[in-house]
Amino acid sequence: MSERRPPRGESPYRGPSAPRDKRERERERQARRPEAAPPPAKAPLRERIAASAGDGPGWPREQRFHGINACLALFAARPQDIRKVWLLESRIPKLKAVLAFCVKHRLGYTVVEDADLEKLSGSGHHEGVCFSALPRAELSLSQWLQEWPRGPAIALWLDGVGNPHNLGAILRSAAHFGVAGVFLPKHSELALSGAAARVAEGAGERTPLVRLGRDDNAIAQLRSAGFSLAATVVRGGQALYGTALASRLVLVMGAEQVGVADELAKATSLRLGIPGSGQVESLNVAAAAAVLLGEWWRQRHPA
Amino acid sequence: MSERRPPRGESPYRGPSAPRDKRERERERQARRPEAAPPPAKAPLRERIAASAGDGPGWPREQRFHGINACLALFAARPQDIRKVWLLESRIPKLKAVLAFCVKHRLGYTVVEDADLEKLSGSGHHEGVCFSALPRAELSLSQWLQEWPRGPAIALWLDGVGNPHNLGAILRSAAHFGVAGVFLPKHSELALSGAAARVAEGAGERTPLVRLGRDDNAIAQLRSAGFSLAATVVRGGQALYGTALASRLVLVMGAEQVGVADELAKATSLRLGIPGSGQVESLNVAAAAAVLLGEWWRQRHPA
Repeated sequence: MSERRPPRGESPYRGPSAPRDKRERERERQARRPEAAPPPAKAPLRERIAASAGDGPGWPREQRFHGINACLALFAARPQDIRKVWLLESRIPKLKAVLAFCVKHRLGYTVVEDADLEKLSGSGHHEGVCFSALPRAELSLSQWLQEWPRGPAIALWLDGVGNPHNLGAILRSAAHFGVAGVFLPKHSELALSGAAARVAEGAGERTPLVRLGRDDNAIAQLRSAGFSLAATVVRGGQALYGTALASRLVLVMGAEQVGVADELAKATSLRLGIPGSGQVESLNVAAAAAVLLGEWWRQRHPA
Repeated sequence: MSERRPPRGESPYRGPSAPRDKRERERERQARRPEAAPPPAKAPLRERIAASAGDGPGWPREQRFHGINACLALFAARPQDIRKVWLLESRIPKLKAVLAFCVKHRLGYTVVEDADLEKLSGSGHHEGVCFSALPRAELSLSQWLQEWPRGPAIALWLDGVGNPHNLGAILRSAAHFGVAGVFLPKHSELALSGAAARVAEGAGERTPLVRLGRDDNAIAQLRSAGFSLAATVVRGGQALYGTALASRLVLVMGAEQVGVADELAKATSLRLGIPGSGQVESLNVAAAAAVLLGEWWRQRHPA
């Protein structure tokens, strides 16, 4: 650790926290419910920071983010959610604006060594920076539907996707193709973790994240809002190419091994497969998402 | 480590090897030149194992593979290249055929604990199994062209892709869409590592890997064999959708930050971009490869 200290920081470095276990992640997820989101962006920034610094019940816990693009995107999207910053000395130029913000708003930043960052971020892929920040807010489906009352829109429903790398890759493709929302099932542990945000390369702050309620309720809500649901399946699906995709579409992406849950697949109006050589069982779920989103985009933008 | 021992194994477990450094990987890559490939598959299996067990100069060094689908695919594609097997006790049923092969061919297998596998494979994602095996053989471009003298064929030229996870993901999509070859530049360190093979989920043994010579020679050879070259670029490319793709096509995929090397991009007849929302800089290279391969497939298989 270097000698540098945050000039007026209130939160000095207290050493890496213990590795987070499953229960702790679950507690964090519980704490991340929409009503615990920071106050609206209308208040002055300093007030917003003060207001979202609570630690009582109902307040979201901080989590760690790492990766230079992920951290810069978080800073651009919701600077008021940042609580602490650790960085390598070599990252000072790239993070100048972040450090100036820390000084102005009396947040602690600390220049540390590589090994400290690895512990702080829980990753060897920290890319020289780690933030402690509030989790990204998730919307309810009703909140999300208010923003998409009509017109073409595509959303991804991640049913059983559990790998943070796949989530990160999906969020990056989703931002590229302008996806309207990424739906996370009620009981899924899937959330924007530090690893997912790092893999998303900044796109983790783009596409709205929607925490669903019960599957049957979500399906009914989506249908009454004019959305078609299509499940992607490995075997027995209708070939993607040659299928006209609905302009308001929810693509249900299943877990790699087991696919979309049977009940959910049955409730969808279309079962889609991505044609191929048959040499391998299936595409990776993030590759499949990219192919499907590309084809939906192509059909919406005829040459 | 459990008490189990290889029944008649000649290669008992000698503990994990030290982590491999860059120079060692380079030496391995050098050793992986085509003339060092194991003898042709015509010889009886036992002779092939004996013949490929050499340790002199010019013989490829063993490398570690892990992941259940990667190891099962290696066993299916080139069992004679396996030298040692380590596994968790819980993996015995799934690896029954591999263990029977080890017994028959006097190869050592050892049941180990999770922590041992993590050290042996150098990965926490070992999925209960690790092989020590010869590297997968790479073809020269001339050898590969002999197998694709005419007709539709698509190949991926990975210019500057360095991340083994991206290579693994690309190999999986390549196998799905029946790609004819994946080209690795002369001076690239990129090769089928254990991590890449694990991410490819078995597809790492499918698509031929081709080690290129000098870029200008490779371009000339490909052109005279009737291939068009298209470079994928982040900015200023022709929109993928609406562009008719050549039936004999080499897609040059660049590094995420810097894209395709300028000289190579200039030598290609087409610069392709994947349209999108503009919200993010670019797609991940593996997602881009999947989108491009899907579109080439769609154009070859009109509905």
